[in-house]
Amino acid sequence: MQLGLVGLGRMGGNMRERLRAAGHEVVGLDHNAELSDVANASELAEKLAAPRAVWVMVPAAVTDATIDELAEVLGEGDIIIDGGNSRFSDDAPRAERLNERGIGYVDVGVSGGVWGRQNGYGLMVGGSQEHVDRLMPIFEALKPEGDFGFVHAGPVGAGHYAKMVHNGIEYGLMHAYAEGYELMTASELVTNVPGVIKSWREGTVVRSWLLDLLDRALDEDPELAQLTDYTEDTGEGRWTVDEAVRLAVPLHVITASLYARFASRQDESPALKAVSALRQQFGGHAVRKR
Amino acid sequence: MQLGLVGLGRMGGNMRERLRAAGHEVVGLDHNAELSDVANASELAEKLAAPRAVWVMVPAAVTDATIDELAEVLGEGDIIIDGGNSRFSDDAPRAERLNERGIGYVDVGVSGGVWGRQNGYGLMVGGSQEHVDRLMPIFEALKPEGDFGFVHAGPVGAGHYAKMVHNGIEYGLMHAYAEGYELMTASELVTNVPGVIKSWREGTVVRSWLLDLLDRALDEDPELAQLTDYTEDTGEGRWTVDEAVRLAVPLHVITASLYARFASRQDESPALKAVSALRQQFGGHAVRKR
Amino acid sequence: MQLGLVGLGRMGGNMRERLRAAGHEVVGLDHNAELSDVANASELAEKLAAPRAVWVMVPAAVTDATIDELAEVLGEGDIIIDGGNSRFSDDAPRAERLNERGIGYVDVGVSGGVWGRQNGYGLMVGGSQEHVDRLMPIFEALKPEGDFGFVHAGPVGAGHYAKMVHNGIEYGLMHAYAEGYELMTASELVTNVPGVIKSWREGTVVRSWLLDLLDRALDEDPELAQLTDYTEDTGEGRWTVDEAVRLAVPLHVITASLYARFASRQDESPALKAVSALRQQFGGHAVRKR
Amino acid sequence: MQLGLVGLGRMGGNMRERLRAAGHEVVGLDHNAELSDVANASELAEKLAAPRAVWVMVPAAVTDATIDELAEVLGEGDIIIDGGNSRFSDDAPRAERLNERGIGYVDVGVSGGVWGRQNGYGLMVGGSQEHVDRLMPIFEALKPEGDFGFVHAGPVGAGHYAKMVHNGIEYGLMHAYAEGYELMTASELVTNVPGVIKSWREGTVVRSWLLDLLDRALDEDPELAQLTDYTEDTGEGRWTVDEAVRLAVPLHVITASLYARFASRQDESPALKAVSALRQQFGGHAVRKR
Repeated sequence: MQLGLVGLGRMGGNMRERLRAAGHEVVGLDHNAELSDVANASELAEKLAAPRAVWVMVPAAVTDATIDELAEVLGEGDIIIDGGNSRFSDDAPRAERLNERGIGYVDVGVSGGVWGRQNGYGLMVGGSQEHVDRLMPIFEALKPEGDFGFVHAGPVGAGHYAKMVHNGIEYGLMHAYAEGYELMTASELVTNVPGVIKSWREGTVVRSWLLDLLDRALDEDPELAQLTDYTEDTGEGRWTVDEAVRLAVPLHVITASLYARFASRQDESPALKAVSALRQQFGGHAVRKR
Repeated sequence: MQLGLVGLGRMGGNMRERLRAAGHEVVGLDHNAELSDVANASELAEKLAAPRAVWVMVPAAVTDATIDELAEVLGEGDIIIDGGNSRFSDDAPRAERLNERGIGYVDVGVSGGVWGRQNGYGLMVGGSQEHVDRLMPIFEALKPEGDFGFVHAGPVGAGHYAKMVHNGIEYGLMHAYAEGYELMTASELVTNVPGVIKSWREGTVVRSWLLDLLDRALDEDPELAQLTDYTEDTGEGRWTVDEAVRLAVPLHVITASLYARFASRQDESPALKAVSALRQQFGGHAVRKR
Repeated sequence: MQLGLVGLGRMGGNMRERLRAAGHEVVGLDHNAELSDVANASELAEKLAAPRAVWVMVPAAVTDATIDELAEVLGEGDIIIDGGNSRFSDDAPRAERLNERGIGYVDVGVSGGVWGRQNGYGLMVGGSQEHVDRLMPIFEALKPEGDFGFVHAGPVGAGHYAKMVHNGIEYGLMHAYAEGYELMTASELVTNVPGVIKSWREGTVVRSWLLDLLDRALDEDPELAQLTDYTEDTGEGRWTVDEAVRLAVPLHVITASLYARFASRQDESPALKAVSALRQQFGGHAVRKR
Repeated sequence: MQLGLVGLGRMGGNMRERLRAAGHEVVGLDHNAELSDVANASELAEKLAAPRAVWVMVPAAVTDATIDELAEVLGEGDIIIDGGNSRFSDDAPRAERLNERGIGYVDVGVSGGVWGRQNGYGLMVGGSQEHVDRLMPIFEALKPEGDFGFVHAGPVGAGHYAKMVHNGIEYGLMHAYAEGYELMTASELVTNVPGVIKSWREGTVVRSWLLDLLDRALDEDPELAQLTDYTEDTGEGRWTVDEAVRLAVPLHVITASLYARFASRQDESPALKAVSALRQQFGGHAVRKR
């Protein structure tokens, strides 16, 4: 089928190729003219036969502006799909705005990173049954082969919600491996830490794709000597904790993983300076001064 | 090669079959005469040609007694392998005791649970290079096919240490999935939670064997209605936290996972009763009384 | 000086008495006519000489409506003080709205609970220097005697912010005592747990007002047998964690305290049911079924 | 009454003065001859009339050696008191060894730090009723005036156990304040953080002796600019977590406080380097390299 695709960066560009390889007709738009198939949104709309479907794959910060621009050139019966990393709570207001013009809205959480073009993308979809049905050929082409990798998670917002939870879990998984890795490096007994990690890839309870990647990283740099411990976080981890607070769900593990990243970016912890100050006051404990 | 195997329960029994299928000659000993190939330790020793190798696969509580009994009937040049869930710190003293009699000692952490007979077992091995080399045919038969599933992790103790860390990581991984699962069940948006879990099995960052199992559990019981939240823990999780404390390694995630299991087994939290008492005292807050 | 006081519940009523005892002229307004000194907001405004100061002490849910009502009857040069448990982020928008009418706005975090009338209230104040200076006689009367109990924390919003942090810390303090209490009750060695708590009230590093209250609670009910562990939380704890996430500050302790309250209110933990399901799947571990 | 006192360092020296000021006859022994009243243990025993009481106040590492030395010169009916920071689990074996010679044993957890000489020491005592009764004049002199500061917590070991829990709580309390302090320093709104801390000393729920000390530290150094965040821990915090694990008590807050100190002493977190490596692998995320 035909699909408009706005945003041809690393993710969008790979998706265009995977879709075309599956026989779909993709009209791409990007502010980088070299990547773009059309000059602007109007031309994009013209190239597609109604009812149109346009997938938006742009940074979260410009998603609303991009959708509003598309809304100007699309019309009754068309569908806009947001496949970016939007916060789920932005979806319902968008759907409502578009609905006033008769335009449908579907949100899709997309997982798979740079590996998706080859392996397929994990897709979590929110929207009406009718809209999802219409888009199924696209979803089929993007998802991995086999029985998994696609879910209609619920109404508008559910796709990004599921992706947010996916990423929250990912924080916890990564940190669990990381803690085990650190404990082994601290131990006197395990003299072959990369070998242990590698061995776990088959036959163990902890085998996973992330473990495969950790092994891959250790193959390239057995002591991770090229890296610092400075670790960014993205919106999804924070939103997951916000949801934990809103819904009163105790997420000790995911939150601790997020906080560990926060701490990794501090040159110095003001909290621990305060602890140090207290220890000096009450116990005359020797503390480390500058 | 020949192997003595003491303990023919669920794990030991399956291992005997996997070893025999690979062409090894296994002489099994169990207190259950129906499972046992020989009547006692002496007979076991007689059936094996020196230098012998005897693998002990018994509950941790009787491992030392079993090894001491074997030491009486084995001798110079023989090897005892402990494949059970011993604490790593028990390995060095055992190796020393056996060494006085010229008997070698190798510790093996074995992962894979009930799935190991079919898929192979993940093996983490501690001991001298010489002993490990002699036992390689056995390890080759037990491990999964392919490049992974076996590691010589370090000297005596390193095998059980790596297995302890493996299990500590397992606690964290399981809890990360569990928290994400709970958040989705608490949300109004995700109406198809089992479907989301299933979809993650391909194309996503969080795909893993544990996720496959969670999907399997939800296939059998989509709301986990048959289960309570009472969750046991085993030694390895606690030992991991003990090691975190001993080595001053901050294991927020793994520890939180262990503590959540502790809490799941309490009818009532004395700590929260104390918090409730405090709130009532200072604020006249309404609290829940019996 | 003169002060209008809207909301004469437990907090507001006690504050009126403390202010009158200090010689101030307080005109109180409450929807309960028996408590109220005037019939409505207009009458309140008439009874006060301009420039007026009106302190709002109502539940957070009706604070905005109350302030909007007051804005109709107050004017240029008057000041509205919000002493309730508003979220700090509501303060700046309010101040802006009132500023359009020439009305000043000051936010005050008030601590002390039911003990404040007797001991004085801890006051954390946000607003302009000019407004704070004008209200100092009121603050002087409400605060405890001595050098402490009052701070001009910063511009509008800073008072509620400081109070939010105060309450976040309170969560952590209470939970630290509660954990220690629980550990002692679990131990075989400490046979006089209430006696230990009581002894700590002098001479120790952990002495505090909250500890005094815990001792008081244990005097009344030495095993806390009358209470359940069901523990509510209020907005401030959640807002503190929201801020931790927004500002990327790792608040492990305060967050864990909040999450423990969440957990105390669950009949069953969906997360631990998922862990239990996983354990059953991979290990054939016995789990607890209904 | 008469008391032998072994160890005249900062704690022991102050205690000798407080005891003498209360009219007790203290015979002090220290390896530093200038501080010591007698030359050695034998002379100490000779100077005291039987039945003797000797208080040991030496570093934990030499406590057993000191007690064994005393046991040689003491006899039937005498009592040895250990007031140092021993692990509670060392107390019962000691009591048993001494009991074979007819010597009694009492363990005392002592709180109060450098402030104890002036304010009195918080005393948590483990031992038999008979031994505790005999020592009451000493305890009365050391404890603060008033109703608090002393408890007979249970049998031998209970004194050190209560002190261990006291210190575990102390970790949590300090960290709760520290987190609140950090959040305020990160906020744009609170422009007078030391002022907020100071104001909390009266009228608030969070007032405590530790808060007084934090205020004192900020008076001396308002931005804690002289300190680093490197923070030591002592045995008691670790033992508290060990007990949490042994008794299956979920101590999220105290453990997180301990782990934060561990992290403060790491130049770099191996765990976060592993997280960073994973992020680079799956997402092509930019990570910070050396």
